[in-house]
Amino acid sequence: MENLVSMKDLSADQIHQILKQTQAFRDGTTSTLKNKYMVSNLFFEPSTRTKMSFEMAERKLNLEILPFDAGFSSTLKGETLYDTVKVLESIGLDVLIIRHEQNNYFEELVGKVKPAIINGGDGTGNHPTQSLLDIYTIWQEFGTLQDKVITIVGDINHSRVARSNADALAKLGAQVRFVCPPEWQGEFEAFNEFDEVIEDSDVLMMLRVQHERHDGKTTFSKEQYHHLYGLTIERERKMKKTGIILHPAPFNRGVEIASELVECDRSRIFKQMENGVYVRMAVIEMILKGRE
Amino acid sequence: MENLVSMKDLSADQIHQILKQTQAFRDGTTSTLKNKYMVSNLFFEPSTRTKMSFEMAERKLNLEILPFDAGFSSTLKGETLYDTVKVLESIGLDVLIIRHEQNNYFEELVGKVKPAIINGGDGTGNHPTQSLLDIYTIWQEFGTLQDKVITIVGDINHSRVARSNADALAKLGAQVRFVCPPEWQGEFEAFNEFDEVIEDSDVLMMLRVQHERHDGKTTFSKEQYHHLYGLTIERERKMKKTGIILHPAPFNRGVEIASELVECDRSRIFKQMENGVYVRMAVIEMILKGRE
Amino acid sequence: MENLVSMKDLSADQIHQILKQTQAFRDGTTSTLKNKYMVSNLFFEPSTRTKMSFEMAERKLNLEILPFDAGFSSTLKGETLYDTVKVLESIGLDVLIIRHEQNNYFEELVGKVKPAIINGGDGTGNHPTQSLLDIYTIWQEFGTLQDKVITIVGDINHSRVARSNADALAKLGAQVRFVCPPEWQGEFEAFNEFDEVIEDSDVLMMLRVQHERHDGKTTFSKEQYHHLYGLTIERERKMKKTGIILHPAPFNRGVEIASELVECDRSRIFKQMENGVYVRMAVIEMILKGRE
Repeated sequence: MENLVSMKDLSADQIHQILKQTQAFRDGTTSTLKNKYMVSNLFFEPSTRTKMSFEMAERKLNLEILPFDAGFSSTLKGETLYDTVKVLESIGLDVLIIRHEQNNYFEELVGKVKPAIINGGDGTGNHPTQSLLDIYTIWQEFGTLQDKVITIVGDINHSRVARSNADALAKLGAQVRFVCPPEWQGEFEAFNEFDEVIEDSDVLMMLRVQHERHDGKTTFSKEQYHHLYGLTIERERKMKKTGIILHPAPFNRGVEIASELVECDRSRIFKQMENGVYVRMAVIEMILKGRE
Repeated sequence: MENLVSMKDLSADQIHQILKQTQAFRDGTTSTLKNKYMVSNLFFEPSTRTKMSFEMAERKLNLEILPFDAGFSSTLKGETLYDTVKVLESIGLDVLIIRHEQNNYFEELVGKVKPAIINGGDGTGNHPTQSLLDIYTIWQEFGTLQDKVITIVGDINHSRVARSNADALAKLGAQVRFVCPPEWQGEFEAFNEFDEVIEDSDVLMMLRVQHERHDGKTTFSKEQYHHLYGLTIERERKMKKTGIILHPAPFNRGVEIASELVECDRSRIFKQMENGVYVRMAVIEMILKGRE
Repeated sequence: MENLVSMKDLSADQIHQILKQTQAFRDGTTSTLKNKYMVSNLFFEPSTRTKMSFEMAERKLNLEILPFDAGFSSTLKGETLYDTVKVLESIGLDVLIIRHEQNNYFEELVGKVKPAIINGGDGTGNHPTQSLLDIYTIWQEFGTLQDKVITIVGDINHSRVARSNADALAKLGAQVRFVCPPEWQGEFEAFNEFDEVIEDSDVLMMLRVQHERHDGKTTFSKEQYHHLYGLTIERERKMKKTGIILHPAPFNRGVEIASELVECDRSRIFKQMENGVYVRMAVIEMILKGRE
């Protein structure tokens, strides 16, 4: 693994290897990297959790972090992403974590620049470390993904998570289903009634309603959406005894999930974020070791 | 001491303990913290000195600092402060320094989240480390605060410093007086003539005229304010031989203080900033030791 | 050398000393600084490469870096640069790298504040570490600057680089020529026909067309500029066998340089950036050693 830009690049074996290394870091294993590496986090879109999660992972791996301020960079002077990355290569960066609003931005980089590229999210495309932390959280819960019923609910067509997860979960033997309003399902097959699928789901993966991406075309009030597609207290009661709730966050309390459920017993939402740090440590370390 | 959000939480004994530890750090003592701690500085309002002062203190204590960019965070997506802090808890932060425009923002955090909360200023409410550095600077000068006459001059009603300081200084035996225009005194008793109180003051604590908080209702020109309530060269000449000048900064030269006085013999303005680093080291270390 | 604000302050001997130390760092020498130093990078104008290049140099020298966010600082509250710098002095900073839009901003600082001041670019004035990295890159190529013909092409009147370089290159024995449209040459003597000077140039130093500084008065389309003053593929073919191409970047592909030439054999553009890190290490170390 030289870079990580999409879940499509990972085999089931590679994913299992990442899960094991994630577990090892959670259990207190420390990094065995031999060299001092330089990393920078290029976030061209706002993010608290993903950026800080990567930063925490980088610190735990003893990497040196060079801050990059996208809002204050030469891209303001019209520089292309390729040229910015070539500059960072020249300055001596070994790894770049990139979030960018353009789908597949990484195609102009991978194989053409020296630093390792780790995708922190591209447009409505991929977000592989988010997929991996979802997978790890399910694996941690059930010991396997084989035959687990995973229901992804919400704004599928605009979600990085849905697209990244769909294939990867299937690759590991899980049975993936989507629930969403008909107008949001895009290319996906989906249920349009949430209540049909709650009772036999092992995992309910609630997606954020991406208000900022709908350009005013959303046809639901918050209350309507919550009523039709939100995880309400009533729906939570109908879940399997062992069922768990995931959400990639940031969540809209009272929209896709009832505020009271965010920290309920079944919720693994904050555990996902905890796991995110260890997953990212595993990914970065594996990539750097592959280059040593 | 588990958190520090307001001077009201500190007893005179606790304040004296902080003063002694501050002195020890000034004298070259190094930190005796046993673990590696992770800190982040959440500044939702602009600040050079407070943020950098905390950062310097954190580095001198060998903490790991995770940068947090308030202007680029998920709060832009409507996330509540509580949820942001829960995310940072999940990611593994041990201490959060927070400045926020909302008075008492910390009430939704303290006792509900794991990271220690240190208030770096809330709206027009508290700014405890600023109070502590003022107190330390006076204590360093006179060896005590007992019976010292401390005159706070300026925009009392909109000032964090005035509110935080008023009680704390009294608790330590100082005699606190306020000077301000009648329309700015709010709930406080105050002198409206500066010249009445200059000669017997041990400390003149000049406050910044908060242009940005008056919403255009200020009734003074800069020249008028300087003439009536500013520390002019004439007023400085009338001060006690041992009297000193404090200002929390940033200062408006020629408004609340004559430009020539900023670095005069009596001014402790830049010394306050120097002391701020050691005060913050003391506070952070005491809180983390209490948790070890 | 106590500070570095302008190439005018450096003798030929001092420049040669910096070149040698740069070479030593490139060859793997590590820093011999005895103390732990605190540095901050005050960039009041956007920059990716210069800021990150300094940050990389600082990390390689094991300095502690305190982040400074110009867009979020107390200068927003009207604080002068002098007062900001005095605050940073009080907080304990040893070195400040400053980029500021005002020409000669450093005159109000040098000799008046304790931290070492290194100029990262002032308005249309100086940019000494950029000059030094240009000089080092030429020296690395030819072993000397004596009698080398260096042609600087482009927006001379608005360029920090041209002004900083002109004198310094001459001081080292190089023969410097300018090429630009008549309306851009300002106080400089210049050729107005690029083709007259290509064949005998050892170095073509292409400058960025500073669209953002011309306030809409530019009289060329991109295509016209490229045709008249850009380094086209045809012009590159007419260069001396040993001739090299420099550009301070960020570059406008297809304007001052043909896109295909950015990474051609003659181009030292990315090598300049690589060298920039070592040059900055040399400058910072020499200044700090002079203060030890």
